[in-house]
Amino acid sequence: MKLGAIEAGGTKFVCGIATENGEILERVSFPTEEPAITLEKVFNFFKDKGVSAIGVGSFGPIDPNPESETYGYITKTPKKYWSDFNLIGELQKNLNVPMAFDTDVNGAALGEATWGAAKGLENCLYLTIGTGIGGGVLASGKLIHGMLHPEMGHIFVRRHSEDTYVGKCSFHNDCLEGLAAGPAIEERWGVKAYELPIDHKAWEIEAYYIAQALVSYILTVSPEKIILGGGVMKQLQLFPLIRRNVKKILNNYVQTKNILENIDDYIVPPGLGDNAGLLGSIALAMNI
Amino acid sequence: MKLGAIEAGGTKFVCGIATENGEILERVSFPTEEPAITLEKVFNFFKDKGVSAIGVGSFGPIDPNPESETYGYITKTPKKYWSDFNLIGELQKNLNVPMAFDTDVNGAALGEATWGAAKGLENCLYLTIGTGIGGGVLASGKLIHGMLHPEMGHIFVRRHSEDTYVGKCSFHNDCLEGLAAGPAIEERWGVKAYELPIDHKAWEIEAYYIAQALVSYILTVSPEKIILGGGVMKQLQLFPLIRRNVKKILNNYVQTKNILENIDDYIVPPGLGDNAGLLGSIALAMNI
Repeated sequence: MKLGAIEAGGTKFVCGIATENGEILERVSFPTEEPAITLEKVFNFFKDKGVSAIGVGSFGPIDPNPESETYGYITKTPKKYWSDFNLIGELQKNLNVPMAFDTDVNGAALGEATWGAAKGLENCLYLTIGTGIGGGVLASGKLIHGMLHPEMGHIFVRRHSEDTYVGKCSFHNDCLEGLAAGPAIEERWGVKAYELPIDHKAWEIEAYYIAQALVSYILTVSPEKIILGGGVMKQLQLFPLIRRNVKKILNNYVQTKNILENIDDYIVPPGLGDNAGLLGSIALAMNI
Repeated sequence: MKLGAIEAGGTKFVCGIATENGEILERVSFPTEEPAITLEKVFNFFKDKGVSAIGVGSFGPIDPNPESETYGYITKTPKKYWSDFNLIGELQKNLNVPMAFDTDVNGAALGEATWGAAKGLENCLYLTIGTGIGGGVLASGKLIHGMLHPEMGHIFVRRHSEDTYVGKCSFHNDCLEGLAAGPAIEERWGVKAYELPIDHKAWEIEAYYIAQALVSYILTVSPEKIILGGGVMKQLQLFPLIRRNVKKILNNYVQTKNILENIDDYIVPPGLGDNAGLLGSIALAMNI
């Protein structure tokens, strides 16, 4: 069986074909432009590929509720051209196969639980820290949607005592995303995040913010594994800093082996590497 | 069918019998003393009652994982006599019926989703604000456990600009529980919370902290209904203050009718009133 995946990101679209074992057969990507231009490339890619279903993991906010009138839409986004866009509706007009629709990060959480770092677990959190910050949660084997879907990048954290940066979130100024996503790091220090040396103060501050957020998530959804992806997390020096801060903030309150003994194996990079999003969409397609 | 309920609280134990329709037939309560003394009263209550199952909702932290060696235990608690206590094991020795075991707040969330304010919903949050602060979450129709269970009363919130109180949590000082549970209010103002006038500054600060926490929970688990119970929430003047702060902090980011139009019906007191905990345990028993 061949399954299709669309990872609809704010910067680029990734399309792919994979087997139900998570073996990627084909993969392309192109920049996210106006919907008509971008979707034509999607249609051309999938033409005559013979996929039996397509999973779509999208940037948000989206409406993933099949009961809703606006199911399949990307809803209110500041992303030009894409606000209130009926993504699944437009895809269905051309690609006549069953489709699953969820946030890119919910897809990635499911992909990691199917083939990656959280394989076999029923509870995990996937957090991406890149252009924005977003998270997906698998709880008791099901992706959390609820009223809408998680938007966990926008929780508030306490300010680092040495950080005077005003914040970059257009809704909340200095929420987590406003303080710790890539554009905030760049604006705070005046250079791209990846240009900062690995012993720069920036990473201590970054780890402090991410760790605070992880503590909130641990206390709220109690994941069995936390997977940190996205461009900023390519800075692998962050992992030990984040783990140390998480332990310090929790202060032995949550007495589980995961945290007290095995935190190096609890807060980890994606097991699927850069394919977490694409294989996440395949996992969504398998769940139809 | 008659079902039994045990609401094991740090201050008191409540035991009851109810039908599977949530009709309470009998209810008693007694103070939480040493386990042997307290459990003897529990045994005497249930003797010859003929219940077919018992749901136990307990103060925590607990081990609710049936696969675990310490399943059924109240684990590391500062509560004298009760740390590492095998509650379900001791109950089973005397009361030979199937038992369900969960946190009191997970029970209450399930009870509210079965008969109360969240009736018919698959996603809700029950938060109690009393001697401590704790929450239970139903997501996609299942109670969240994960690695342990939620301990959401211990997340951090930003300090109110006029609040200099040091905080009362023995693990984290000024986490949410350390700033906003009943004992913190009492220590901050020097009188019992219920003695403060309803227009006292205390309530503005309290609402600010609770609203921040709710925003974190909304962005993380996206509940369809938020139910606020516990002694502090008997101060009904808090509800409009909390709702207003939640809207202000979210700043139109989460565009759902629940928040933008119907917040009075989104953040609410328990539909089951003071029976939320007891009927929660009955709901747990029904889920065996």
